[in-house]
Amino acid sequence: MEIKQDVNQLMNWSKQDGGSFENTEEPDRQSAANDFSTIHSKDLLPAENGKEVTKHFLQEILNILLSYINKSLNRNSKVLDFHHPHQLKEGLEGFSLELPDQPDNLEQLLVDCRDTLKYGVKTGHPRFFNQLSTGLDIVGLAGEWVTSTANTNMFTYEIAPVFILMEDIILKKMHSFVGWSEKEGDGIFCPGGTMSNLYSILLARYHFFPEVKTAGMRALPPLALFTSAHSHYSIKKSAAVLGIGSENVIVVKCDERGKMIPEELESSIRRAETKGLVPFYVNATAGTTVYGAFDPLNEIADICARCGLWMHVDAAWGGGLLLSRRHRMKLQGIDRASSITWNPHKMMGVPLQCSAILVRKKGLLQECNQLCAEYLFQPDKHYDVSYDTGDKSIQCGRHVDVFKLWLMWKAKGSEGFESQINHCLENAEYLYHKLKSRTDFQLVFQSKPEHSNVCFWHLPSHVRNMPAGPERDRELHMVAPKIKAKMMEEGVTMIGYQPLQDKVNFFRCVFSNPATQREDVDFLLDEIVRLGREV
Amino acid sequence: MEIKQDVNQLMNWSKQDGGSFENTEEPDRQSAANDFSTIHSKDLLPAENGKEVTKHFLQEILNILLSYINKSLNRNSKVLDFHHPHQLKEGLEGFSLELPDQPDNLEQLLVDCRDTLKYGVKTGHPRFFNQLSTGLDIVGLAGEWVTSTANTNMFTYEIAPVFILMEDIILKKMHSFVGWSEKEGDGIFCPGGTMSNLYSILLARYHFFPEVKTAGMRALPPLALFTSAHSHYSIKKSAAVLGIGSENVIVVKCDERGKMIPEELESSIRRAETKGLVPFYVNATAGTTVYGAFDPLNEIADICARCGLWMHVDAAWGGGLLLSRRHRMKLQGIDRASSITWNPHKMMGVPLQCSAILVRKKGLLQECNQLCAEYLFQPDKHYDVSYDTGDKSIQCGRHVDVFKLWLMWKAKGSEGFESQINHCLENAEYLYHKLKSRTDFQLVFQSKPEHSNVCFWHLPSHVRNMPAGPERDRELHMVAPKIKAKMMEEGVTMIGYQPLQDKVNFFRCVFSNPATQREDVDFLLDEIVRLGREV
Repeated sequence: MEIKQDVNQLMNWSKQDGGSFENTEEPDRQSAANDFSTIHSKDLLPAENGKEVTKHFLQEILNILLSYINKSLNRNSKVLDFHHPHQLKEGLEGFSLELPDQPDNLEQLLVDCRDTLKYGVKTGHPRFFNQLSTGLDIVGLAGEWVTSTANTNMFTYEIAPVFILMEDIILKKMHSFVGWSEKEGDGIFCPGGTMSNLYSILLARYHFFPEVKTAGMRALPPLALFTSAHSHYSIKKSAAVLGIGSENVIVVKCDERGKMIPEELESSIRRAETKGLVPFYVNATAGTTVYGAFDPLNEIADICARCGLWMHVDAAWGGGLLLSRRHRMKLQGIDRASSITWNPHKMMGVPLQCSAILVRKKGLLQECNQLCAEYLFQPDKHYDVSYDTGDKSIQCGRHVDVFKLWLMWKAKGSEGFESQINHCLENAEYLYHKLKSRTDFQLVFQSKPEHSNVCFWHLPSHVRNMPAGPERDRELHMVAPKIKAKMMEEGVTMIGYQPLQDKVNFFRCVFSNPATQREDVDFLLDEIVRLGREV
Repeated sequence: MEIKQDVNQLMNWSKQDGGSFENTEEPDRQSAANDFSTIHSKDLLPAENGKEVTKHFLQEILNILLSYINKSLNRNSKVLDFHHPHQLKEGLEGFSLELPDQPDNLEQLLVDCRDTLKYGVKTGHPRFFNQLSTGLDIVGLAGEWVTSTANTNMFTYEIAPVFILMEDIILKKMHSFVGWSEKEGDGIFCPGGTMSNLYSILLARYHFFPEVKTAGMRALPPLALFTSAHSHYSIKKSAAVLGIGSENVIVVKCDERGKMIPEELESSIRRAETKGLVPFYVNATAGTTVYGAFDPLNEIADICARCGLWMHVDAAWGGGLLLSRRHRMKLQGIDRASSITWNPHKMMGVPLQCSAILVRKKGLLQECNQLCAEYLFQPDKHYDVSYDTGDKSIQCGRHVDVFKLWLMWKAKGSEGFESQINHCLENAEYLYHKLKSRTDFQLVFQSKPEHSNVCFWHLPSHVRNMPAGPERDRELHMVAPKIKAKMMEEGVTMIGYQPLQDKVNFFRCVFSNPATQREDVDFLLDEIVRLGREV
C-alpha cells in the first residue's frame, strides 16, 4: 500500500500531541529545509555530504520520540489504541507493514516510526499496570540510545573495553547488596530472567557433575530439582531445554500466601530420593510472579546446607528490594544462595532487557561454559585477557545490557533507587487498604502484600448477590476477561488477570513505575467498577 | 573520584569533534538556558515541569551521539583510543566508573556518556575489520532508538501488537528468500547466532524424541550430531548446555578451503552408528567464521535425506547472500534444510542484536517450548491469541530485535540490501587480488574468497628470508599478535587474527560495512606493512 503523508502532516501531529515538546525553534523553517520525501537512506551517512541529512533525519526521530515520551507520561493520553491483528495487517490509515523491493523515502520512514509508536502500548504510562516491567526512565533511555549507537558486543575487552569494566563494577555492586564478601561473587548479564534461571541450573549441574559438559546427561544419575508451586515457569522450561526433563522438576507446595513451605521441601526431597532420584538443586523465589511472595530463604538455605544442594534464588522480581533498607529484610538469607537471578529491568525500572545471573563461586561460569574459540579469545593478546569474559557466556555475541543500568545508578545513586522502590511499595499498600475497605472487591489473600503485587477480584453486583459455590465461581471467572477486553478497547488503563490453581480469574496489579501516583490507583478501581457495570 | 567538567567544556568538545554536526542554532544560548550541573535525574519527567528539562537533556544526548556518528564515519578519526583495563579502572581524566550512593548531576551524566563513547571502539568506522558485525546504519540506529523508547517485550500481542506482526512479516520474507513455500516456515528472533543454533538442536531433538521434554536425555538413546571442523563453536557449546555432551558432537573433516567433505560426513555417520550412537542432526555452515566457506548444501541434504537426519544450516554469516542474485547460488540447497540460522546483524548491517532461527516445520517451535503459563498466555482473551508467540521461545521476556530490520528493509528495499552486500564482496575480491600480486603477503588458501573473508599472513622481510620449517612458523606465528598490539595502541585501524588447526596465526579481514571503500583496503595493507617493520 502506498502512503503519501507529508512532512507538514507529520509536524502537525507532533504539534498536536507533543504539547510543549515540539521544537519551538522555527519548526517550519526546519521542515522546509528538509523535504524528506525526495531523500532516501542512501543519502544518509556514509554518503558524501550525508552529514546534514543525517543530522536532520535523526533530529526528526528525536522529535517523534520526545512527543511519544510526553504522551507516555501524560495521564490524558491513552495507554493504547487497540486494533485486532487482522486490522493492523490490512493496513490502517496508510500504515502498511509490508516490505518493498524498492526503497521508501525518509518521509515515509518517519511516518512509519510515528505509526509504530501510535499503534503500540505505552508501557511507561502511569496507568499501565499490566506487567512487572513498566515505566520509562529518561536516563535509562538515554543509556540505551548511547548503547545502540556504540553498537558493540560483550565478548571481548578488545571491542567493548568500557562496557566490560562497567559489567564488572555493577556485578560487584550487586554482590555487595546481596551480602557476599569481596572474595566471592561472579556473574554475567544475560537476555532475561529465564536465561538467568537456566544458567543457575546449568551451573549447579556442572558443579556437581562436571563430566556432563562432555558426556551429557546420560553419564549422570537421574537428577531432581525443586521449586515451589508459585515459582516461575522458567524452571520447568530450563529443565526441558537442559535435557533434565520437566517431570524431574518437583513442585513444592506453598502456603496460602504463595510461600514455599520448608517442611514440604524436605519431604519432597526425601520422597525423590526414595524413588531413586538424585536431588541437586532448589529454586527459592524472592518475589513470585503473581502473588509477589518471598520464600523463607534462611529455612530453605538450612535444608540445602543439610542436604548438600545448590540453592538458587530467583529474585528476578524481588531483587530490587535489596536496595531498600525498609524492605530488604524480606530477602534475609539471600547471601547464603549459590546463585541469584536479579532483573534490574523489573523493580529498578531499567529499560528492557537487563537481567543478571549472580554466582557465588568464582570461576565456575568460565569453567562451565568456556570452549576457548581461538578466533575470538586469543591467549597471546597484549592486554590482560582475564577481561575477555565472553567465554563465560552461553551466547557468543552478547548485547550490551549494562550501560543503561550503570548510567541510572550514576543518576540516582543507590538512594535514588531506594526511594523509587519504596514509593512503588507504598502504592501497593495504598491499593491494599482501599480494597480491604470495600465490598465490591475481594482480596485473593488477606495479608498485607510483601512486594508490590496486589491480587483481587472485582465483584459486580450480580456476582456479589450470588451464594458462594461453583455457579458463582463460574460467573466470577468471566468477570476479569470481560472487563479486560473492554479496558483494552477503551485503552485508558491496563491491568493483567489470570487464574491460579483453584482460584478463578483474578486481577493482579503490580507497581514498578515511579510515575504512578495514588490518583492512578483510584482511577484504576473506578475504571474497573465502571466497566464491570457493563459486563 | 570527583569530576568537574562544565557544560561549556562539553559544548566545546562537541564543536571540535562534531564538525558540521554541532547545533548551529545558537548553541550558546541553549547551553546557557540549561545549567545541567544543578539539575538531577529527579528533575526529568515524570517530574512536574520536567518536560523542558527532558527535552534539553535528550537533545544534548542527541548532539553527543551525532558527534560520535560523525567521528565513526570520518577516516581522519581514530578507530579506538586504547587503554589497559587497570588504566580505565583507575579513572582517566576524571572518567570514573565507580557507582555513587548519592545522585550525580545531569552534566556529569553527559560527560560520562561522552567518555564512554570516547574510550570505546568505533565499530562503524570504515577501517574497523575486526568482527563479522561492523558498520553503523543510520536507519537501523533510528529503529533501535524507537525500539528502546517503546520499551516493550515480545511475549504477547497484547503489549507488542505492531512488533509481533512485523516479526511475522519479516520471517515470511526471509522464508521466501530461503525458497520455502507459503505452507512451510516458522521461526523466531533470538539473542544471537549461538542461541539460534541451540534452538536448532533443541528442535531436532524434540522432533525425533518428543519425550525428551518431560523425561530428559536419560530416556533417549545416546545421540550424535555432526558439524564440520570449521564450523562455529556454538554447536559444541549447545550440545553441552542441552545435556547431549560436547563429545557427542562429531567433527567432520573439511577440504583445504574449509568446506565440509560430504564423504567424510557419510563415513562419520557410519562410524558413529557402529559405536552405538544414534545420529539425528547435521549442521552445515553457509559462511564459516574464519574462512567464509560454504559447505556443499545439496550434497549434505542428500545424505540427511538418505539417513533421515535433521539438516540445519548455520547461515548466521552467509545468510545475507540470499539477497544477492550474484551470490545466492553459493547457498543452493538451503531450501532443503529443516532449520536455518540467519543473523541480519552480520552481513546485512543491522545493529546488534538481530538473529533469527527459521524452522521449516510449522508448529514445532510452539510444541517444543510451550508451557502455557496462565499469567501470561490467557486463553480467554478477546483477540486471536495465535499471535501470542511468546511461548515459542525459550526466553520469557524477549527483546524487540525486529523493528530495526523492518525499518531498514523499508529504507533500502530488498535491492538496497543486495547492492550493499555485493559491494562488501567486491571489497574482498579487491583485497584478494592485491594480496595475490604481492610477495610480502601470503594467502592462507589460494582460491578466490566465496564470502567477504580474506585470510592471509604478512611476511616481514626477516620472515620472508627464512627457509620454510618450524622455525619460520614460530616466527610467523608471532607476527600477527605483535602487529595487532601496535595497531590497537595506534588505533587507526583494526583487524583480527587467529591460528587455525595446523596454521599459525594469520589475519582475517572481513567486510560487512558498506562504508568501507578500496582506499580503506589499501590503507589496511600499508598499515600492516608499516607496523610489521617495527616488530
